[in-house]
Amino acid sequence: MVELEVIADGAVLVGDDGMIRAVGPYRELRRRGGRARVEPVEGVLFPGFVDAHTHALFGAPRLAEHELRSQGADYQAIAAAGGGILSSARDVRSRSRPDLAKLAQTRLRALLASGTTTVEIKSGYGLSVQSELDQLAAIGALRSPPSVIATFLGAHEVPPEFRSRPEEYVDLVVDEMLPAVAQQGVARFCDVFCEPGVFTVEQSRRILGAAREHGLALKLHADEIDGSGGAELAAELGATSADHLAAISPAGIAALGQSSVVAVLLPGTMLFLGKTARAPARQLIAAGAAVALATDFNPGSSPGVSLPLMAMLGVSQMGLRPSEAVIAITVNGAAALQQAETRGQIAPGFRADLVLAAMEDWRELPYWYGVNLVQRVWVGGAACHLRGLPVNFAG
Amino acid sequence: MVELEVIADGAVLVGDDGMIRAVGPYRELRRRGGRARVEPVEGVLFPGFVDAHTHALFGAPRLAEHELRSQGADYQAIAAAGGGILSSARDVRSRSRPDLAKLAQTRLRALLASGTTTVEIKSGYGLSVQSELDQLAAIGALRSPPSVIATFLGAHEVPPEFRSRPEEYVDLVVDEMLPAVAQQGVARFCDVFCEPGVFTVEQSRRILGAAREHGLALKLHADEIDGSGGAELAAELGATSADHLAAISPAGIAALGQSSVVAVLLPGTMLFLGKTARAPARQLIAAGAAVALATDFNPGSSPGVSLPLMAMLGVSQMGLRPSEAVIAITVNGAAALQQAETRGQIAPGFRADLVLAAMEDWRELPYWYGVNLVQRVWVGGAACHLRGLPVNFAG
Repeated sequence: MVELEVIADGAVLVGDDGMIRAVGPYRELRRRGGRARVEPVEGVLFPGFVDAHTHALFGAPRLAEHELRSQGADYQAIAAAGGGILSSARDVRSRSRPDLAKLAQTRLRALLASGTTTVEIKSGYGLSVQSELDQLAAIGALRSPPSVIATFLGAHEVPPEFRSRPEEYVDLVVDEMLPAVAQQGVARFCDVFCEPGVFTVEQSRRILGAAREHGLALKLHADEIDGSGGAELAAELGATSADHLAAISPAGIAALGQSSVVAVLLPGTMLFLGKTARAPARQLIAAGAAVALATDFNPGSSPGVSLPLMAMLGVSQMGLRPSEAVIAITVNGAAALQQAETRGQIAPGFRADLVLAAMEDWRELPYWYGVNLVQRVWVGGAACHLRGLPVNFAG
Repeated sequence: MVELEVIADGAVLVGDDGMIRAVGPYRELRRRGGRARVEPVEGVLFPGFVDAHTHALFGAPRLAEHELRSQGADYQAIAAAGGGILSSARDVRSRSRPDLAKLAQTRLRALLASGTTTVEIKSGYGLSVQSELDQLAAIGALRSPPSVIATFLGAHEVPPEFRSRPEEYVDLVVDEMLPAVAQQGVARFCDVFCEPGVFTVEQSRRILGAAREHGLALKLHADEIDGSGGAELAAELGATSADHLAAISPAGIAALGQSSVVAVLLPGTMLFLGKTARAPARQLIAAGAAVALATDFNPGSSPGVSLPLMAMLGVSQMGLRPSEAVIAITVNGAAALQQAETRGQIAPGFRADLVLAAMEDWRELPYWYGVNLVQRVWVGGAACHLRGLPVNFAG
């Protein structure tokens, strides 16, 4: 059982380097603070939230697809009507890098305003060598806050020009994209959409094995629709995280439980798509896995930005305890990005990423929903400007 | 099929009385506007949203209950642990009217900031003659905006002192509460929680029949858990709305379809409670019923304030088309409160309740989620102050 430590009338002492020096009751810290400037706040102070899975660099929202889905269209019908990942790829390929960056920046402000201080962003709407590199460059050029961690997802989908010869696209990812990504140092992680009909377990193993040789850490879109071995592969390869998992098999649960792979669950995606499957969070925890929650922010299956809302969904849809839900968007989110040593906790040696929420009790975080109670956000000790929120989400 | 009319480069001409005089393309209206002051705005202008079902006057959030539920506790176990409606009733009874009003006012600001310009609020945490009257007085004293419509819900639950003799509580509602409520003119509607284990169809018929004689319009909490005749009763009595309906029977669907009762669906409640049942919105529409969506904002089963989020859930969870979801929180919400002639539309003769959202396409309203894209709100033509949002939701 996860326990949160709550300090009443607490204070945080932050150094000039933006790192936390000390945490404790204000009375005690006041003595140690020396000449530190005191900034009084009222509410509950959380560690900055860490969103470990997004596709936040995209162009237009996929509104027609949303309407088609409400009329019962499935993934195939939507793809046949020109929708799906490939429609976002066409859109992204057609835009200039400044245009894309501006859109992403606007959207990141909404994440920040909901308390997200670290966000992972994947490429994967490029699907050609140059376009994937362009996307990673655009992600790398985004201004903090929130701070951004880039993931290369060239294997997000097989592009149309390779539809009849998917192995050749895997060759392209392995032989051309990965070496260039590694050489340019533009991504920390490599991810693959491992799912029947997209990339097989064999293809995923090949891509991720090559990525590891290039020094990238590994992630997997695993077992979203079909429990076909994605989680097992993540454990086999020592991936940092396995994400989605709504259809994970019992063997997959056992494999994750015995590994150090973080299970990143995306309840907003199942909700937005109107699916009834839910990732088996309780079974994963019982098996020993660490569970994180993320938004999956993207224009097709989860145009949602709020980690507190994901925490509420973690409780209501997956049976997480409120404490587990808070851990899932802080400590475990950070672990899913290899940042657990400096982010996701309010403790000495951690970066002063802090979220002040207008509440009296931390349990309110996964309780009130559809309202943003985040009042102030600090990243690396610096107060963030939260005003003047989204003017145009649509692009 | 519901159609929305979209006017590009549109304008609204508002009279000094706060009512809409004309709507149309700006170029045309400019000629008719005479000396009217022009206020340029950018985005999509919606009719103010109408939340037709809330219990927004309450005390503390029920956080312990939320945690118990995450551990698998059912309604009975929660009640046995001191939770449920009765715990909110104890809490509300113990608070002063100014305290309650202040809390409600804070919370209403969050509804307003999400675009709600008219909100229904029920009593029902009093469950004694004086306490119900006190609550209705507190509701009546709330400052607009949003504008508030009061519903008497003395029959929300059988209070503990009547547990062994529920008929006597029904007597109290009929013989003492209703006459006093009617005489004081503090409620427009009477509502009953009609559900096996709460109030039976017979008891509900008796209370609502008496309410009608006192000149109150009727609502029903119907068929939330068990399809036991609530919807049929609403049709029989000519109620203004039947609410919840997650377990409505085929006979109930047919009855509502042939009546003018508005079906008020509450998708946030099923979501927050982690239930898989969904009100059959498509069947209701196919049968001819008008469907509204509301928040059910309350501390036990739906601490959510956002009608745009309910619209997203209407699409994703109930198969509403985006246009139907928008209609459900505007036109049909107004109809569920007998306000369809002056609220819920941007049209001549309607009150100038307007919501400006930061989007390019109205279909973005039930699409982006977990982010509030409402930028400006007007009620009766007057711009509302949206800054300085919730400082303390918990009370």
